Amino acid sequence: MKRAIKEIQHELGEDSISTDNEDLTLHGYSEWSSVNIERLPVAVAFPQSTEQVAAIARICHRYQVPMIPYSGGSSVEGHFSAPFGGISVDFLNMGKIVAFHPEDMDVVVQPSVSWMELNENIKDSGLFFPVDPGPTAKIGGMIATNCSGTNAVRYGTMKDWVINLTVVLADGRVIKTRQRPRKSSAGYNLNGLFTGSEGTLGFTGVAVTTFPTMRDAANAATQIIRQGIPIGAVEILDDVQMDVINKMAATGREWKKLPTLFFKFSGTKAGVQDNIYGVREIVCQNGGSDFEVEQDKSKQQVLWSARKEALWSMLCMRESGHEVWSTDVAVPMSRLPDLVEISKKDLEQLGLFGSMLGHVGDGNFHETILFDGAKERDKVAKCVHDMVHRAIEMEGTCTGEHGIGLGKKDFLEKEVGEGSVSVMRAIKLSLDPKWLMNPGKVFDV
Amino acid sequence: MKRAIKEIQHELGEDSISTDNEDLTLHGYSEWSSVNIERLPVAVAFPQSTEQVAAIARICHRYQVPMIPYSGGSSVEGHFSAPFGGISVDFLNMGKIVAFHPEDMDVVVQPSVSWMELNENIKDSGLFFPVDPGPTAKIGGMIATNCSGTNAVRYGTMKDWVINLTVVLADGRVIKTRQRPRKSSAGYNLNGLFTGSEGTLGFTGVAVTTFPTMRDAANAATQIIRQGIPIGAVEILDDVQMDVINKMAATGREWKKLPTLFFKFSGTKAGVQDNIYGVREIVCQNGGSDFEVEQDKSKQQVLWSARKEALWSMLCMRESGHEVWSTDVAVPMSRLPDLVEISKKDLEQLGLFGSMLGHVGDGNFHETILFDGAKERDKVAKCVHDMVHRAIEMEGTCTGEHGIGLGKKDFLEKEVGEGSVSVMRAIKLSLDPKWLMNPGKVFDV
Repeated sequence: MKRAIKEIQHELGEDSISTDNEDLTLHGYSEWSSVNIERLPVAVAFPQSTEQVAAIARICHRYQVPMIPYSGGSSVEGHFSAPFGGISVDFLNMGKIVAFHPEDMDVVVQPSVSWMELNENIKDSGLFFPVDPGPTAKIGGMIATNCSGTNAVRYGTMKDWVINLTVVLADGRVIKTRQRPRKSSAGYNLNGLFTGSEGTLGFTGVAVTTFPTMRDAANAATQIIRQGIPIGAVEILDDVQMDVINKMAATGREWKKLPTLFFKFSGTKAGVQDNIYGVREIVCQNGGSDFEVEQDKSKQQVLWSARKEALWSMLCMRESGHEVWSTDVAVPMSRLPDLVEISKKDLEQLGLFGSMLGHVGDGNFHETILFDGAKERDKVAKCVHDMVHRAIEMEGTCTGEHGIGLGKKDFLEKEVGEGSVSVMRAIKLSLDPKWLMNPGKVFDV
Repeated sequence: MKRAIKEIQHELGEDSISTDNEDLTLHGYSEWSSVNIERLPVAVAFPQSTEQVAAIARICHRYQVPMIPYSGGSSVEGHFSAPFGGISVDFLNMGKIVAFHPEDMDVVVQPSVSWMELNENIKDSGLFFPVDPGPTAKIGGMIATNCSGTNAVRYGTMKDWVINLTVVLADGRVIKTRQRPRKSSAGYNLNGLFTGSEGTLGFTGVAVTTFPTMRDAANAATQIIRQGIPIGAVEILDDVQMDVINKMAATGREWKKLPTLFFKFSGTKAGVQDNIYGVREIVCQNGGSDFEVEQDKSKQQVLWSARKEALWSMLCMRESGHEVWSTDVAVPMSRLPDLVEISKKDLEQLGLFGSMLGHVGDGNFHETILFDGAKERDKVAKCVHDMVHRAIEMEGTCTGEHGIGLGKKDFLEKEVGEGSVSVMRAIKLSLDPKWLMNPGKVFDV
């Protein structure tokens, strides 16, 4: 291990690697994570180029040192923790937009570019990058978890936005998965394989409406999707979440403490009006009321602000010393009303303080629970795990967008079966026979 | 080999496998294919269930007999030919729609269901399956080649429409890649890996317009895409193709012998009108004329008929004993005008009779060349190969939708590099160590 660090310093420079305790903690522990472990990485490397990443991999491969990639550090399932020690590879110094081809509608970026920064940089071209996870997320980690966000219902998830990848393999070999065509049938889909192997919107309409129950709101959302109305986003927030937003006074207005759907619409003026009309009809049929539409840009921002401030408001409610557990599941759309209803009852019966928020057009939703780690951790774990099992039993997935990491390893086999996990394991072994790349995540050896 | 056939007969029944010469030829040779070989499969098996497919795989694995999957038989790069003999596995008897879940907008099908039959079956639900390759294609082969068609510009390619796959591995193990959520971040994307591992539309507007040159037409198409007008399809047909359609009197009307763009629009009435207005502006700026729009359903069919009859008209022109070579490439969109112009000149200079047709919104296009195999094969091969090299040099792909098969094996390494091919090879070896599944395709051992 020490020799590996020395060699990296020798090849990449003295400052290329840190063993500073603060750095190690920052790269091995996260207060956002559902799971944290005692062990920390032994060092943190800061490569400046693909060649430097390859050099780190060659050295680590020779000395059998585990490597753990790190970009935005915002993942919630322990993706960047270091259960086997090793070197955390932080892409901090690889945050450049390398080339922008507006005429081809593609862009070449390094892993540490943030999606928000990318959008800021390309906005004058009239183009935008649609994948919208938490604001601190960076492209590298977004690819690693096949992340998504509110826009996925219209624009798809991260895997749909990767044209090619430059990948450094476990032994330092560098490959490029494809060239730059928008579609290809040439060879195995290595983009799709590496993406998820562990992402704004100019819009012209926003609407908000409330419902008596979460089931009514979920029913309305699934019917809208089923009818094929091309909405830009449809997000569900429960009464707890709306109450928290009021309490934190995050938005400059008072919201009803009721299950609420937030919609975005985009397209031509006439198209947006047609779509809003269609949505309003379905909302009314499902008991929705107070349907509020805004087509003025600045007023739209106020209307959407509750959705935008939801997570932050929730986190502001956290008492000192208390913890947060944020989780996600996804189910076939018809099962969503059942799942949100049961999961909400479960939270209430356990006496836990948690809110629900969902990208409901994808059948995907989140629970965020605030709790006293010393007293309530077991109860919260049971609540989350029960919801995951329920989602899997409904033919869903233990994670729609956060990934497996450490936190959901126990569920993957139940979800996809022992056979599929053994295929994933065989693929990993074929590309990383020494089991050095982010070991201990997704599945065990 | 004989023992393997006997065992399959013993387990699956006498009629489950054929060694009839006509069957062997039908499953090993195709007049549509760019490449044919001397060798045929030794037998053709007709499984009726996943269990029977698994039994065949177990037996073939034990006796080291190659297996070649066969569904619609419409691929053009030799995907189902048998360079190492072995057993062709024809899914003829596995053509059932197993379960349709309109409320989840998903359907469970066996591999031999045709996409047209599927659409016929589900049309009353108001849903449709958007991937539209040749009419004889079946879902199994469509997945194997990650196929697409005219709707891909709006709806994406086959990989975007696969929720899960039941896969029989080389040794007979059966895995299911996922459950039924619409999105997932759980584990490796095995859907994406198996899709392309070499395995309709209600619309409310159609428009047609002609251009002086292919470059003008391609320029207009790329600008429309770049501006984000949500067209349902945009297809380019060259002057040769339009002339052939006239000569074959395939459509009941006379078309100008000029490069032509065909458009489909879908959405609400007002939205479609806005989109047509936007397209017409760009068309005019690029020298287009005779812009014709049809919103009446039956008249739309007449207007779209030229696109629909293009390939069949071309094939009707074929003289007895002559051959057809159909190929496809895709490039970053900005390079499409260059590529179509150069490729057209090349056809003309070589004195070859070929037409051009493209899913131009994806940067993807086809050449179909009719030729005298005895005299012109070398010239045609050079013309096709030059176009492929040109596409790769423009950072494109040797195939946008047909796949590699036998016909394009020589180009994959130039396109993605030796490193990526070695990763694909490592993955194949990890799942098929005896190299029995469709050996000789995509890349060599």
